[in-house]
Amino acid sequence: MVSKNQIKLVKSLHQKKYRNRHNLFVAEGIKVVSELVASDFKVNAVYSTDAEIEVGAAGLVELVSEVELKKMSALTAPNKVLGVFEIPKARKPDLTGWVLVLDDVRDPGNLGTIIRLCDWFGIEHLVCSLNTVDCYNPKTLQATMGSISRVNIGYTDLPTFLEGVPSDIYGAFMDGVSVYTKAMPESGILVMGNEANGVSKEVEALVSRKISIPQFGKNTTESLNVATATAILLNEIRRG
Amino acid sequence: MVSKNQIKLVKSLHQKKYRNRHNLFVAEGIKVVSELVASDFKVNAVYSTDAEIEVGAAGLVELVSEVELKKMSALTAPNKVLGVFEIPKARKPDLTGWVLVLDDVRDPGNLGTIIRLCDWFGIEHLVCSLNTVDCYNPKTLQATMGSISRVNIGYTDLPTFLEGVPSDIYGAFMDGVSVYTKAMPESGILVMGNEANGVSKEVEALVSRKISIPQFGKNTTESLNVATATAILLNEIRRG
Repeated sequence: MVSKNQIKLVKSLHQKKYRNRHNLFVAEGIKVVSELVASDFKVNAVYSTDAEIEVGAAGLVELVSEVELKKMSALTAPNKVLGVFEIPKARKPDLTGWVLVLDDVRDPGNLGTIIRLCDWFGIEHLVCSLNTVDCYNPKTLQATMGSISRVNIGYTDLPTFLEGVPSDIYGAFMDGVSVYTKAMPESGILVMGNEANGVSKEVEALVSRKISIPQFGKNTTESLNVATATAILLNEIRRG
Repeated sequence: MVSKNQIKLVKSLHQKKYRNRHNLFVAEGIKVVSELVASDFKVNAVYSTDAEIEVGAAGLVELVSEVELKKMSALTAPNKVLGVFEIPKARKPDLTGWVLVLDDVRDPGNLGTIIRLCDWFGIEHLVCSLNTVDCYNPKTLQATMGSISRVNIGYTDLPTFLEGVPSDIYGAFMDGVSVYTKAMPESGILVMGNEANGVSKEVEALVSRKISIPQFGKNTTESLNVATATAILLNEIRRG
């Protein structure tokens, strides 16, 4: 049986402060939990309302009641299984390929979608500014559809990181050069900015190549959503 | 002063049933309301808590209290201005250019993002299956960022529509031919499927060219989100 203290701990992990304090995060749903169990992530606990559930963590699953699961869950309709995992240490990004950098992306859904895109396009390293939303936020995790287990995500001071890289630094700007003009190289850094304000001035000063996605409509749309713009630019990088 | 009946009417428009009954929909926030007022959409009413607000509908704005606005709003934090507009009749799609077709896209945010993408890429006609989420859903409207005023959106029985078009019908499928293989033509139909199930069997039978977005990761990601996949394919269409 799950103790009151365990329930309290799991619930606290919906907040970033407690995730960082305990170095743990929560994932929900059979798909995400199974993928995390099968990955290099360290399992702390798996709770389920179904004794027969198969998440690849035989012997680890603790049976809980629906009421207990609801208490631990961040979802309005909890999804049978909830896993607690250790937050992994980010590895140093490998600069021989492409690295995606996010400058203050604030929406959890956008970050989750971007992580899923990294996985699709084989971008293994994602570097986020310190003010980018936490990737272990429940809404972000939900949007990653399990792909978080295959992307190395770190948070750091961007100017310090970018000053130290030898690669060309590309950045998405409304007034950049059309991304169609020249094929993208085999490696580099791509910086995507905040939903409302784009790339910050400090980071902009370190960008060597400003690029943009051409607009074909009536020039009245102000911008693309950051996740869809990232989709288009990662596709441009990989299509060659 | 706004009457109780008016408040009741506006509130009812958050539901599709009443939008269809009254042929009206609600938009919120100064940006979206201004863009709709400036467009061909017919204004039914504009309510605001700010007498000085400028939405291009001088003389039309009815002053309401914050309590009244909150009663009419679908938002937890209402945004100063709320407009009621007539649902326009969809025009017949112009088949000399590209037309985007959605086969049961269910998530309001995805539909809104796709409408914004159509606007960016100059896709003027969007044809939705009857089970696609309503484009006048408050969450969809929010995600369009005002671009709904520049895209002609219709709902129809897809097989009937597709049987009658002379254009090539492209569809996004996991097992399609890589979209990088051949440049896309100047016109055509692009069909995007449901979030979980993709394109339906009935519609699939009418697709003449199955295309896909190549995957570069470890082949473990099951699919891309429909809005990001649409972003990539519309970019492929326009980049030539």
